[in-house]
Amino acid sequence: MILLRGLLGAALRRTRQRQGRTLREVSAAARVSLGYLSEVERGQKEASSELLAAICAALGVRMADVLREVSAELAVAEGPRPVLEPVGAIELASDVDMVRTPMVVSDVVAA
Amino acid sequence: MILLRGLLGAALRRTRQRQGRTLREVSAAARVSLGYLSEVERGQKEASSELLAAICAALGVRMADVLREVSAELAVAEGPRPVLEPVGAIELASDVDMVRTPMVVSDVVAA
Repeated sequence: MILLRGLLGAALRRTRQRQGRTLREVSAAARVSLGYLSEVERGQKEASSELLAAICAALGVRMADVLREVSAELAVAEGPRPVLEPVGAIELASDVDMVRTPMVVSDVVAA
Repeated sequence: MILLRGLLGAALRRTRQRQGRTLREVSAAARVSLGYLSEVERGQKEASSELLAAICAALGVRMADVLREVSAELAVAEGPRPVLEPVGAIELASDVDMVRTPMVVSDVVAA
């Protein structure tokens, strides 16, 4: 299973390292403990929304840019958009049997 | 402060509603409690990476697509890329005084 926190932590670490900054500097700027930041960077701890915002502010980057980077990596890891029905919507299969073109899941509407 | 969980929850809710599915259906498919899913959708609870993956699977959407949508919203909410130095890097100000063109923070390298 691909976990968001792993990719997110790696993106935060890359950003910090590109800036040539240490864990100590960034954790102090973000007012989080060094150990916590290190665990977040290694994907071992979920960053709360507040702490993610604080870490991004400390790094001087937009959360939007970090998430876009993570989204692009996830897209590669997850592969093409699913063409099958959502999990738990197997009962819809008979409705989509006749669909000839690849469909995206958002087109599937539960009865 | 713009919080990721609020935008993420709203994106998950929109996805579910576009599919015409109920909280009950999706929470059962994702094997999370209905109350938990509801709180996540309302931005009141952080979804762990595992549960975010399970909810996305239940909705039949890629996490990558949900995050890209959230990233685009965040970009609007956060405004243009910062041109100031990162928080906690005020000591760099003298280095950037002479920069005439807008710079992105990733160009700022701590001493």
